[in-house]
Order: sequence, then C-alpha cells, then structure tokens
Amino acid sequence: MSIAVEDQTAATDSERLARAYLLGVAEPPAPHLLEFVGEHGPVAAAERVRAGDCPEPVLRETAARRESTIAEQDLEEAAKSGARLVVPEDHEWPAWPLLSLAVAAGNGVKHVAAPLGLWVRGDASLAEVADRAVAVVGARLATDYGVHNAIEFGHALATRQIPVFSGAALGIDAAAHRGALNGGGVTVALLGCAVDYAYPAGNRDLLDRIVAEGGALVSEYAPKTPPARHRFLVRNRLIAGLTDGTVVVEAGIRSGARNTATIAGALGKVVMALPGSVHSGSSAGCHALIRDCKATLVTSVDEVLETVGRFGTAAPAAESSRRPTDNLGPEASRVYDALLPRAGRAPEEVAESAGVPVSRVRALLPALEVDGFAVRGETGWRQIVRTANR
Amino acid sequence: MSIAVEDQTAATDSERLARAYLLGVAEPPAPHLLEFVGEHGPVAAAERVRAGDCPEPVLRETAARRESTIAEQDLEEAAKSGARLVVPEDHEWPAWPLLSLAVAAGNGVKHVAAPLGLWVRGDASLAEVADRAVAVVGARLATDYGVHNAIEFGHALATRQIPVFSGAALGIDAAAHRGALNGGGVTVALLGCAVDYAYPAGNRDLLDRIVAEGGALVSEYAPKTPPARHRFLVRNRLIAGLTDGTVVVEAGIRSGARNTATIAGALGKVVMALPGSVHSGSSAGCHALIRDCKATLVTSVDEVLETVGRFGTAAPAAESSRRPTDNLGPEASRVYDALLPRAGRAPEEVAESAGVPVSRVRALLPALEVDGFAVRGETGWRQIVRTANR
Repeated sequence: MSIAVEDQTAATDSERLARAYLLGVAEPPAPHLLEFVGEHGPVAAAERVRAGDCPEPVLRETAARRESTIAEQDLEEAAKSGARLVVPEDHEWPAWPLLSLAVAAGNGVKHVAAPLGLWVRGDASLAEVADRAVAVVGARLATDYGVHNAIEFGHALATRQIPVFSGAALGIDAAAHRGALNGGGVTVALLGCAVDYAYPAGNRDLLDRIVAEGGALVSEYAPKTPPARHRFLVRNRLIAGLTDGTVVVEAGIRSGARNTATIAGALGKVVMALPGSVHSGSSAGCHALIRDCKATLVTSVDEVLETVGRFGTAAPAAESSRRPTDNLGPEASRVYDALLPRAGRAPEEVAESAGVPVSRVRALLPALEVDGFAVRGETGWRQIVRTANR
Repeated sequence: MSIAVEDQTAATDSERLARAYLLGVAEPPAPHLLEFVGEHGPVAAAERVRAGDCPEPVLRETAARRESTIAEQDLEEAAKSGARLVVPEDHEWPAWPLLSLAVAAGNGVKHVAAPLGLWVRGDASLAEVADRAVAVVGARLATDYGVHNAIEFGHALATRQIPVFSGAALGIDAAAHRGALNGGGVTVALLGCAVDYAYPAGNRDLLDRIVAEGGALVSEYAPKTPPARHRFLVRNRLIAGLTDGTVVVEAGIRSGARNTATIAGALGKVVMALPGSVHSGSSAGCHALIRDCKATLVTSVDEVLETVGRFGTAAPAAESSRRPTDNLGPEASRVYDALLPRAGRAPEEVAESAGVPVSRVRALLPALEVDGFAVRGETGWRQIVRTANR
C-alpha cells in the first residue's frame, strides 16, 4: 500500500518560509503565537515576531529564539535529508483530524494547541494517511506478551489498509510499526525530535524502513533538534489528534502511553486498551485506563475497528458457539434435561423429574422428537444428545 | 471466623412443614406459587395446592408433584444429613439481600422469583453471612492462571472477613471456596442439587470442609434431588441475589458464570471481572463482560471492595477522602442512614427502613449516640449529620 503525495504544494514560498521561522522560534505548543498567526497570516506574523512587534504573551513564547532562528537554513537542512515542511496552506495538511486539537483547546484543555506546521520525511500524504488511522502505542519496557500483541495489531491493521501511527520508541511503538510494515501497510512515526535526528539509535533502521516503504516520519521540531522529555509529551497530542482512536497495547501505571490515551480522550477520540495478566505491572496502566478512564477493552483488531466505528467493519459478534438446545424454551429445556440417552422414561417420570405438568410433558415430547431432541422407543422416551454446531 | 446461628427458629412447625411441601412440589423459580403463598400464607397455600384448589397458573407449576411430595420425609432426610430448612418466617432468613430478587421480578426480569425456602447444611446463619458477601465464580474448565487468582481472591476476601459465595463447581468455584477456607473465612456454596447430594463427586471433601469450617451448603432442592443443567442456571440467581457483588475470575464466552454475572447486573448488584491474556479463550467471557456489559475490571480484592463500596474499605490508590461514618459497621451504617436529621423516628421505623432487626436497632442507637452520630429527642431518634474530615 502506498499513499503518495499528489498535490503537495499550495502554500507560497513566502508562506512556507514564514511558517518555518514561526515553528522554529517557539517551543510547541505555542497557543498565543498560533492565535497571532491566525489573526495576521503567517507572513505578517513572522515579520512582526522577528521585529518584536507583538503582544506580550506572544513575545514570551518567542523571545528566546526570535533572533537566532534562520528559516532558510532549516528548509535547506530538511531538503538534504529528503524532508519537507507541510503547512496549513498546503492541500495535504490534515486539517480535519487536527480540528480536534483546536476544539479541545477552545474548550479549555491545556497544552493541545494545533501545530504551526509539520516537518515530514517520507512520501505519504499527511491528509490521506490521517484520513482514517489508528494509533498503536505502549511502553518502552515491554514484555514478550506486549511486543507480540503490538506486532499482531500493527499487522492486522495494515492488512485492513488502516495506517498505523505510533511514536517510534523502543518496545511497543517499534513493534507496532514493524507489524504494520510486515503487513505491507503504511505507518507513520510522530517524533519528539527532528525528522533527521535518528532517535532512538536502536530504531535507526526502522525509521529508514518506514520512509522507504511509503510511510512518514513527522515532527514539529526543526532539523537537528535533539529529543527531550517534554517534547515526547508534547508530541503525544499529535499522535492522538491525527488518528481516530488510540490503542494502548501495554503500559505500566506511569507510562507515557497513558498520557497519549488521556489526551485522545480529551480530544474526543476513541481510547482502547488491551488487557493482560492481573499480576503484570506492564498491563497495570491498561487496566487503570479501562477501570478508571472508560477506555474500551479490546482483544482483537476487529474489536478495534468496531469500537472506532468509522470503517464499516464489525467484529464477528462475540463468536459464541450456539448450542442446539439454546433455542428450547424453559419447559422444553427441563423436559429435555430430564430424559436419559440410554434408557427410556415414561412421561410421568419425566414430569416428576422436570417439575413440568405431565400434560405439558406429553405435548412437548413429540415436539422435541420432531426437532431431533428426543426419540420414542419401546421402553419410553429417550434423549438424543446434541452437541454444539461448532 | 465463625458466624454461628444464634436464634435459628421463629417459624412454627406447621409453617416449616408447609414450606417443605411447597418447595418440593414446584420446580423453582415458581413465581405464581410464590405469589399464592404470599397471599394466603404457607399453611393455607400448601393445603390448597395439595387439594388442587388454586388458580390455573399455580396448578400448572405444581401439577407434576403435588400428590407425590411428602414434606415430612424431606425434613427427616434433611435432619439425617445435618441439614435444616430455613424459611422466610425464620430470623435467619436473608430477607434483605433477597429483596433484590422480588424487586427485579416486579420490574419484569424473568426467572428471578425469590425462593420459597432454602435447605441449609452447616452452622452459618444465612442472614449474617449474606449481610455482606461477595460471589467469586467462574468456569469449570479453568487455567492455572484462573485457579491461582480464584484462590488468591477467596483468600484475600476471607482475611478481610467477607464471606465468599460460589457454586461449588470444579475449577474456579472450588478454588474460590478453597481460598476462603485457607484464609480462615466462611464460605457458602449454592448448589444445583440437594445439600445431601455430593456433587460434583470430585468436590465431596470440599463440601464437607465447607460445612465443618463454619460455612454452609444451600439449595432450593429437596433432599436427594440430583443435579440438572437447568437447576444450575436457576441456582445462579441465588448466588447473585445473596451477595453484594459478583466477581467473574475466568470464564469462556459460553460459561455459566456469565449468566450469574448477567443476573447480578439485572438485580442491581455490582458485576466485576478479572482480565487475562487476549489469547486466552478462558478469559474471553470476562473480557466480553467488561467490554459489552459494563462489568468493572478488577485486578485485586482491594479493587473489589472499592467497587462494591459498602464495606468501608477503599483501595489504597483511590485516595478517597474518608468520612466519619466509614468506621461504622454495616448494620450501624444502615441504621445511621435510616435516621433523619430533622424528624425523630421510632426504633421500629428505623428497623423497617434499614432492614435491621429491631432488637439490633435498639442496641445500636445508644452506641451511635455515644459516638455522636445520633440523638434521642422527644419525637424519637434523629441523625446528627457528620461531614468528611477532609
């Protein structure tokens, strides 16, 4: 599967340059700068920020880097690593999914301001991959059980043409990306560092493979920006915001994956978690999400798709293997139970044992015979043992 | 821990004999017979049923056995095995918890009519063990994981003085009983056969141990009645009805334990389930309960107690601010709740409202007064409102 960029550009060069500058000057999320850009447009806003001609809150967000940021250099560096800057003025800007961030911010949710632009390395069109996507996330310290499930869920989503978003961390995230790639799918990694900063080093090959196989690395951070703890937390809002739902595969009680799930919930997205052993600390975060935060328990990708609900797929309805006797009414069921497979019983005996009036027993036995549950022999009525259909 | 019978009798011999007959003639649940007994009292009802002088629906429920049932014989057989018949006229009848069955039946829930009496083998007083109890149930085909957890939960409830109710089946049920016994607790087995019918044979020692160690075997079925599939289903309403909440430890998608959980939910009781591996068919029923039926996911007995909520215990993580009334015992707490802040109530009114015997109410009210929870005025006892410490 490959979702290639068809019409990459729409923004003007000056708009893109201005956005590169604005992304560089403020550490995201930068709600006041975002509002300022919304009022004045990126080009004018960038000029005024550079000149220090802006309201106090915007000045505070931009003061540290407004003189040192060189947007041209960032764009050149990006080009060297095959990356590009996607901005809201572009056709491929994922405006629809990111609207959830603006709505939540408007409703008073903290630290969820939309990004001013996104650095992207890889051919995937952001708008198309984010049109229907699921985030699969979890802890770095994962068990075999968690890694196995992350691979399985990534793979199963890929085979159903659902792009898999994750955070490229060691452990569950990496396994989810790998599963998607092995399933021939598109996978997108949201990073807490620049898209040209190979982190974590142990996942360098994975990051290259994501790009090579039609996916993308996505970040708010200018080329060469190193990772930082707060950047991973800030990045989490993009994983939650760009997808329809977040699946937490395995997470300890303090895992950052719970943070992503919490944000997803605050954005009105679907939050799901896999159960595990009650003795596993690595599942404790998942259990807490299900127990205390109304996350939906999921055990399969069919259940994920049913929960997310947008994809026209439904889980095969609990696959409960029905027994033939399930369709019997309560009295018929008791009469059936009162029969023996190898010895005949008289209706009076059946009535006594089943606690059903003998007149009803006399009426029910022939009906049971017609349906193949009972047979009349010389010594009386016998049970025909019926096993489950499957 | 031992909860012994203090005042076993209150019913007259003729009432008990009549109830023994009524229990024997109809296969439970027998809603029409129950209503008939409610209208006419057990003695007159039994006479009229034996004579066939009752409305058509009652006749249908009783026709099969009304001439063959010999109550004297049932009572003699019971006495031989050390069992007794407990009836609603007895002090130890668990009227309060069983009220849930009548309420649900009144609301149109099918097949949940209250029992006409209960055969009991063991010294435990039914009213006392059912005053605060948790059901721990699950499938016969259990994994090591499930058995381990059932033992652990049974044990932990026992050490917190919570009686453990279950169904004495192989697998999870037996493990829950064993865990409770090993924890020095009282455990009660609700049976789908008579209390003198050692079933399942593999649990014969366990059944004897339950009786020997202060617990009880309980059943609606007359002595010598064999087990039957529908009887286990009918029995499930008693497990659900006699307890404050039901914990499903492990259950396949078709396990009868799900049935118990569903009934518990219909009765307004708390339904809980343990998670397990997404690959374990033996946990699939638990996961379905959590996912589709709003059962609460629990991973420890602390979480069970927090969920059930009546026992003045909170899981350590929950940091719930304590109320002064949290230290009251369950009966004292109910008496406190039955008082009004601005109008006096007589002990009889309080007993009625709290579902606590008036003799206990008379003993508890002065104790509540000493502790500053109640005050006696000219018009009766009033509540002193106590707010949270923090």
